[in-house]
Amino acid sequence: MAAPRLRFGYAGLRVRNLRRSMAFYLGLGFRVHKRGTMEHGGEWVHLRYGRQAQELELNYYPPGSRFYERYRTGTEFDHLGFFTPDVDYWVRRARRLGATVAIDFSETHERLAYVRDPDGIWIEFCGKPVPSSRRRKQP
Amino acid sequence: MAAPRLRFGYAGLRVRNLRRSMAFYLGLGFRVHKRGTMEHGGEWVHLRYGRQAQELELNYYPPGSRFYERYRTGTEFDHLGFFTPDVDYWVRRARRLGATVAIDFSETHERLAYVRDPDGIWIEFCGKPVPSSRRRKQP
Repeated sequence: MAAPRLRFGYAGLRVRNLRRSMAFYLGLGFRVHKRGTMEHGGEWVHLRYGRQAQELELNYYPPGSRFYERYRTGTEFDHLGFFTPDVDYWVRRARRLGATVAIDFSETHERLAYVRDPDGIWIEFCGKPVPSSRRRKQP
Repeated sequence: MAAPRLRFGYAGLRVRNLRRSMAFYLGLGFRVHKRGTMEHGGEWVHLRYGRQAQELELNYYPPGSRFYERYRTGTEFDHLGFFTPDVDYWVRRARRLGATVAIDFSETHERLAYVRDPDGIWIEFCGKPVPSSRRRKQP
């Protein structure tokens, strides 16, 4: 028997302040695809980027709701990954939106700049490597 | 000036045992799209589902490598979301692959079953609601 259809829909973040996270991700160019409320309390928003079908879900659980937990940074989620020919531009834009730079380094074939979103979640901007004379010191 | 192109590529998980996580996600039907090693140590694998462009990245950082951290469950990552007409099938299949069921309930318009992957990351299977006579008690 063939397996019933399965569609990989999204990765979902848990955010502490939905308005703040929306301002950040819409500022990076996402648009709202769908949004709704959960019967047990809370709100979800599905974001899409341009014409891509890939979605990012933001979830907000108000204190006291069934799935509320005190915010705790973990390690199981590594980062969201973005590709661009202009890493500098997107790092600057993310910083103007309130992100902080976590790390920025080049390997042989690519430059990897990581910023932290308003909840501290790492976001990677991956692009062309910086010529070695312009490289920042690796941490 | 138009913003330089940005492509939302993937959500990346940090896994403790790459072989174990690969067995799990390939068992759910993902296939390896690309994989590689990091110059600072570690391995990454980009997984795709069917013909979808959406990717899931698995990252493994060996102890002692630059980005290694002791595993710590956090709350900032909520879950990976999957849609299917047959939630029962996929919950059973995930359990056979070593997942544990975290919670399983129906709201008015949908059934939401959550399992934990080998690292404890929540995975949602979303489908049609179970008729109320068959509903499990909500936790």
